[in-house]
Amino acid sequence: MKLQLNDTLLITGDSITDCGRDRPFGESGGLGNGYASQVFALLKAVYPQLHIRVLNTGVGGDTTLELEERWETDVKNLKPDWLSIMIGTNDVWRQIGKPEAEQSLTAYENRLRKLIEDIKPSLKGLILMTPYLLESNKNDRMRSLMDQCGVIVKKLAEEYDAVFVDTQAAFDAVASDIYLAELSFNWDRVHPDGAGHMVLARAFLNAIGFNWEGK
Amino acid sequence: MKLQLNDTLLITGDSITDCGRDRPFGESGGLGNGYASQVFALLKAVYPQLHIRVLNTGVGGDTTLELEERWETDVKNLKPDWLSIMIGTNDVWRQIGKPEAEQSLTAYENRLRKLIEDIKPSLKGLILMTPYLLESNKNDRMRSLMDQCGVIVKKLAEEYDAVFVDTQAAFDAVASDIYLAELSFNWDRVHPDGAGHMVLARAFLNAIGFNWEGK
Amino acid sequence: MKLQLNDTLLITGDSITDCGRDRPFGESGGLGNGYASQVFALLKAVYPQLHIRVLNTGVGGDTTLELEERWETDVKNLKPDWLSIMIGTNDVWRQIGKPEAEQSLTAYENRLRKLIEDIKPSLKGLILMTPYLLESNKNDRMRSLMDQCGVIVKKLAEEYDAVFVDTQAAFDAVASDIYLAELSFNWDRVHPDGAGHMVLARAFLNAIGFNWEGK
Amino acid sequence: MKLQLNDTLLITGDSITDCGRDRPFGESGGLGNGYASQVFALLKAVYPQLHIRVLNTGVGGDTTLELEERWETDVKNLKPDWLSIMIGTNDVWRQIGKPEAEQSLTAYENRLRKLIEDIKPSLKGLILMTPYLLESNKNDRMRSLMDQCGVIVKKLAEEYDAVFVDTQAAFDAVASDIYLAELSFNWDRVHPDGAGHMVLARAFLNAIGFNWEGK
Amino acid sequence: MKLQLNDTLLITGDSITDCGRDRPFGESGGLGNGYASQVFALLKAVYPQLHIRVLNTGVGGDTTLELEERWETDVKNLKPDWLSIMIGTNDVWRQIGKPEAEQSLTAYENRLRKLIEDIKPSLKGLILMTPYLLESNKNDRMRSLMDQCGVIVKKLAEEYDAVFVDTQAAFDAVASDIYLAELSFNWDRVHPDGAGHMVLARAFLNAIGFNWEGK
Amino acid sequence: MKLQLNDTLLITGDSITDCGRDRPFGESGGLGNGYASQVFALLKAVYPQLHIRVLNTGVGGDTTLELEERWETDVKNLKPDWLSIMIGTNDVWRQIGKPEAEQSLTAYENRLRKLIEDIKPSLKGLILMTPYLLESNKNDRMRSLMDQCGVIVKKLAEEYDAVFVDTQAAFDAVASDIYLAELSFNWDRVHPDGAGHMVLARAFLNAIGFNWEGK
Amino acid sequence: MKLQLNDTLLITGDSITDCGRDRPFGESGGLGNGYASQVFALLKAVYPQLHIRVLNTGVGGDTTLELEERWETDVKNLKPDWLSIMIGTNDVWRQIGKPEAEQSLTAYENRLRKLIEDIKPSLKGLILMTPYLLESNKNDRMRSLMDQCGVIVKKLAEEYDAVFVDTQAAFDAVASDIYLAELSFNWDRVHPDGAGHMVLARAFLNAIGFNWEGK
Amino acid sequence: MKLQLNDTLLITGDSITDCGRDRPFGESGGLGNGYASQVFALLKAVYPQLHIRVLNTGVGGDTTLELEERWETDVKNLKPDWLSIMIGTNDVWRQIGKPEAEQSLTAYENRLRKLIEDIKPSLKGLILMTPYLLESNKNDRMRSLMDQCGVIVKKLAEEYDAVFVDTQAAFDAVASDIYLAELSFNWDRVHPDGAGHMVLARAFLNAIGFNWEGK
Repeated sequence: MKLQLNDTLLITGDSITDCGRDRPFGESGGLGNGYASQVFALLKAVYPQLHIRVLNTGVGGDTTLELEERWETDVKNLKPDWLSIMIGTNDVWRQIGKPEAEQSLTAYENRLRKLIEDIKPSLKGLILMTPYLLESNKNDRMRSLMDQCGVIVKKLAEEYDAVFVDTQAAFDAVASDIYLAELSFNWDRVHPDGAGHMVLARAFLNAIGFNWEGK
Repeated sequence: MKLQLNDTLLITGDSITDCGRDRPFGESGGLGNGYASQVFALLKAVYPQLHIRVLNTGVGGDTTLELEERWETDVKNLKPDWLSIMIGTNDVWRQIGKPEAEQSLTAYENRLRKLIEDIKPSLKGLILMTPYLLESNKNDRMRSLMDQCGVIVKKLAEEYDAVFVDTQAAFDAVASDIYLAELSFNWDRVHPDGAGHMVLARAFLNAIGFNWEGK
Repeated sequence: MKLQLNDTLLITGDSITDCGRDRPFGESGGLGNGYASQVFALLKAVYPQLHIRVLNTGVGGDTTLELEERWETDVKNLKPDWLSIMIGTNDVWRQIGKPEAEQSLTAYENRLRKLIEDIKPSLKGLILMTPYLLESNKNDRMRSLMDQCGVIVKKLAEEYDAVFVDTQAAFDAVASDIYLAELSFNWDRVHPDGAGHMVLARAFLNAIGFNWEGK
Repeated sequence: MKLQLNDTLLITGDSITDCGRDRPFGESGGLGNGYASQVFALLKAVYPQLHIRVLNTGVGGDTTLELEERWETDVKNLKPDWLSIMIGTNDVWRQIGKPEAEQSLTAYENRLRKLIEDIKPSLKGLILMTPYLLESNKNDRMRSLMDQCGVIVKKLAEEYDAVFVDTQAAFDAVASDIYLAELSFNWDRVHPDGAGHMVLARAFLNAIGFNWEGK
Repeated sequence: MKLQLNDTLLITGDSITDCGRDRPFGESGGLGNGYASQVFALLKAVYPQLHIRVLNTGVGGDTTLELEERWETDVKNLKPDWLSIMIGTNDVWRQIGKPEAEQSLTAYENRLRKLIEDIKPSLKGLILMTPYLLESNKNDRMRSLMDQCGVIVKKLAEEYDAVFVDTQAAFDAVASDIYLAELSFNWDRVHPDGAGHMVLARAFLNAIGFNWEGK
Repeated sequence: MKLQLNDTLLITGDSITDCGRDRPFGESGGLGNGYASQVFALLKAVYPQLHIRVLNTGVGGDTTLELEERWETDVKNLKPDWLSIMIGTNDVWRQIGKPEAEQSLTAYENRLRKLIEDIKPSLKGLILMTPYLLESNKNDRMRSLMDQCGVIVKKLAEEYDAVFVDTQAAFDAVASDIYLAELSFNWDRVHPDGAGHMVLARAFLNAIGFNWEGK
Repeated sequence: MKLQLNDTLLITGDSITDCGRDRPFGESGGLGNGYASQVFALLKAVYPQLHIRVLNTGVGGDTTLELEERWETDVKNLKPDWLSIMIGTNDVWRQIGKPEAEQSLTAYENRLRKLIEDIKPSLKGLILMTPYLLESNKNDRMRSLMDQCGVIVKKLAEEYDAVFVDTQAAFDAVASDIYLAELSFNWDRVHPDGAGHMVLARAFLNAIGFNWEGK
Repeated sequence: MKLQLNDTLLITGDSITDCGRDRPFGESGGLGNGYASQVFALLKAVYPQLHIRVLNTGVGGDTTLELEERWETDVKNLKPDWLSIMIGTNDVWRQIGKPEAEQSLTAYENRLRKLIEDIKPSLKGLILMTPYLLESNKNDRMRSLMDQCGVIVKKLAEEYDAVFVDTQAAFDAVASDIYLAELSFNWDRVHPDGAGHMVLARAFLNAIGFNWEGK
């Protein structure tokens, strides 16, 4: 288990992370109803002795651009020990039907890299989660763009020695049993229902060495 | 893992189970925001191949008396393979300050036994969860009454060969690290927050042979 | 133009038709905000001399089963000259992940046929619209089920000499220019936004001989 | 068809244009429920390959005076390729029962001319729509004032080579079949219902060379 | 002054009378905000010694048909000394665009006559108010229908010796000073604003011999 | 009749005048539901040719102190031809149970005088209405204070040649027929119901030479 | 102190008693915010050892007539040991301005007597509270009617050996220090504010032998 | 009785004091529904001749830190004759599970002392109320922290010659008859129900020499 006594874990991202969290940031009962609150509940129930503090500053609709704008107040000022970022869906979403898509992916990578370089030295650990689409057809236009995002996230995780959470792989693993769109609230293939969020939470926890017996 | 392909698991009880579930019964996104939805999310995320269906018919404020009154519509008619019951807090709550308490515990046991005998033959498995108080002082008047309930539930679980979930023990296990009242929403020592519900969900899942790796 | 002076056109179906219409049935300003109101607005603006009356009895969530249950009150009692039916999405939706899917399509066809036989003699004309998915990948599990529905609807249209509206073909025709999911409100690939509804309205109007110049 | 690939069309005006659009400006699903959203839906459904963007900055209650005050933020800053203006009802409405009416029409013309001169050079095309009254009696006091507005708009359209949309003529064309007040929401003879808005949308589209077959 | 000590005056009709009155009937502060409450306020302020009781059972949307259906509960059971009826707008409104209009006026007259004959013997006095349109153009289609109603009401008033209130005449009398549509709430030419209701109230009071000095 | 063609009449005061008027000031349909709207309705219905404009800037809870603070924006800037003031109830109300009451009445007089001197020269006419209590016992502590206010208002009306409206006298005149508290909404003896407001409106209109026949 | 261990005290009446209590009856936190909850709070805080249960079945607007209609469900079925009744304000209120007032007081007495005779034998004790008016002028028309009610209540208390609570006397006792109308919420002289309710609660408690030291 | 004619008593604290009071401060009917309004009601009902004014500036969630921040506006500017403070629950609450607890109690004492020294010279009298927990087990972690707060409050009361209100002792005195948690609204052991607030109000009143007979 990588997190230690009294560590503060900050989780940030877009609407998938937000899920109705409190403002200015979510904590305890105000983490929203997505994977962030599930991660916190599992950490507290299974590792009560660690007193890990979890914060959530996800904001619905955010791209890396908006994240950059609120970086000081929503990330750096909170002085986390661990930081988890999952972003990119809205960067991609807005490109649908625009020829400048690839160029945008470059902007996405550059912005993310800049943020990582800024924060990495002050952290005990960084966690990078890929975006995903609840769609198993890799030729789908949106899925394809998401996969390209995922490749970027993986590359950055390797470069900066971050914990890598491959959320798309976690969903693909259940795709033979579950029609993936069914895991999304309102079938939009983006916002997970409770079970979909648990797939994310489990992938996250596995990546940080969580153990169900609390060892 | 005791549950099998396409099994239906019905979870019933009082407000701790209810947690804002849908009417006439909760399923999928309508399971409320308590341990029932956490159990479902973990079962679906970890055992997608089993396609287990989870239903919730908890009703806030219920004692065994009210459960008995809605037994046909809320339990039997739903024809569950597995049934989980957690009830008793309100039976006890109402006795505070009344001399006829012990007599009431007898009524509690008798009613619960009658319900178990009625449903047991039609089930693949029965799960009995004790009520609890988020209080570590065993001399506390309310905790003491809860413990007596717990003894009854344990006895019934043994008699009828049910899966036994000792929720009080699960909470006591974290009491050295967490001041228990803190795990209750609004500090009432009865209604858990998200982490408290996860303690319940984990105790439940451990009792039915759940394995984090999905084996 | 197939509709004539003072004809009453009844449009029924599921949530795609409903769109917030008035109860017990929608008319004029109470047709909801979907293709039904667009069809009415175009008919009244372009053919004011025909005084065509349009009614809407779509009900969100309906399958052929629920349509059958409300057939008397919502269709026959309203004595339409023309009747348009678009149903099937919910019949299919609920089958996702169930092995008995094919059997269900048979039920779908049988129920629809029974309704058609019941009403056809009293109509001036029947209009059958296929269900659709805003998805261009024909191998997608849900799209594939929808296409099977469409085949059934086409067969019934031919058998009973109904006007046939191939909504999936109408959407496929714009798929090279528009990523189809983008035409759905909230990206669920089922409920169209305003432009998506206009694709439906236009396919409908073309099928009944509508002419933009009102001739 | 006068609009071309990727053109931005800005529609502005008063409450007849506003119709509950989003702020600061409406686009896609936020265009309100009037002729602006109908125009967009028809353009997108019939000419998907053009990817025309439609914006709406109508504001309920506006006269040319208020339009002038918000000209920078609501028109110029949005840098439209095409601009459509329909305004004047409120300029006229407020004059009822005042002797200085004619003087006001002069103010109306002057303000509108000033705005046109300011924006014309930066546009691909300008569209001017007359105001109207849903009243066929040309001697009616309000209709008469509206007609005087219409004359001004027509003169300006000719002077500045704008596309001219004669909305009053479009309504007069259906007046032999429909009692015009009936086309207004709540019978106020100003705010159209869905069919009335479609009369406006069709007149608009005809003026810009729209073709139902999308050619 | 025709009303006497302790007389009960029942005013009934459609939405013009209703104006948000209490249910099952309005009295004192529950008379709604139209002419009925103005009539009551003026009677009580100017003739306090008469203790006249005013009731209101107007119902929005009513034609003579609906009035007939609620005649027992809303008129006869209240045992008024004086009864005032103003109805017909909705009878006419619904005929717009229908060839069977004249026939309908006959139905209107017959139903009204039947109600009058039923109640007349039990009354101290009957008051019949014409419907009206806030439109001075007598050739307007709706105004013309209203005037035909007015002729019927006048004929009935003469036949049955009722107090006759010519509301259209009262509005026509101010038409040279006020553009009539301006007297309607939301300019629909049917529902008066406060001043329009006062025109009705004054015509009513003049007809029953009201005197501003209370003599 | 003292008011003339196109005169603007501004009515101000406390909650008795306010009655839910629009902000920043009430006009036409926004005059609230008290005597101000009744005065306007009667002036417009009976003297349509005068086109008198009525404004209302009453504010609930105001004493002369608050009126003084908003004097510029709520009175002077509106440039009325005629101004009517009714204030004092809250000045008195707050004194109940305080020994410094008489001193306060002096403050009341001084503030009112100062406002009158400030505005008088710019007016065609000033109207001063006394406050009142819906209580006929002149020995009642609150009534007695109100009467002292009334004496001050009368004195000021004489000094500054204002139209004087003795509202208490108007209510006393009906006290032999009506138990006065009954004329107050909620029996608080301060806020009139509809009939009570008409007593005020009639006293006001009589004082300015209003004639029911409009002469 | 007249109440004893485990006694149930039922308090009933009109809106003065109701004060927003729970339905079907108020208890503990559901007693409303009037004298009933103050009585309960003082009894529980000062005499905790007695475990007295207090119920409230007051209903806003009730006269003795309505109390009689709900007598079985709201009084007898609750099997109180002690019953307190305060009613009459609405009986009197409705008589204002009616010549048959005295006759009504007889009806009031007769109904109240009948209820007392029906319940007295089953009670440990009956408590009768007079109605009151927050008005010190005994010549006031409403106060005078209230005093006549009070005489009746006193007579009945003597006849049936009930505890008598003279609420009017309790208010008169503070009238030299407090202008009584000020003790009513919204100055209606009927519904007390918090301090006014405490005057009632104190008069009630003094009458049953309550002692601040709990002896 | 320590309070005298026309004294102003300001009560401040956290949510236990706040109880929904008005802003910027509560008075009369705006004191909230806790002990502050009960104290006021008892003082006014029993000592009407003293005309004591009671203000409430409690703020939910406050610790001594927040109280310090609003000290000028919420305490000093109101210029009370008497000041009552009850604070500390939130200071303690937040320490649960933190090792720096004791240090915090020192901060609590220092801040409170500083505030007392600042205000004491301007007061007729200071009243210090201890915080409490509705828990009779003195070994409970939260109760133990509360008791340490109480020791500090008592020490400060002695040092600064303040009236001391031992609220915990008042609750302990009823603990043999009432299970204390039952006195809290929602069983959180912090926020009292009506009876619990009356225990506080009575302890407060006893400490200032209140006498039920008003002597």
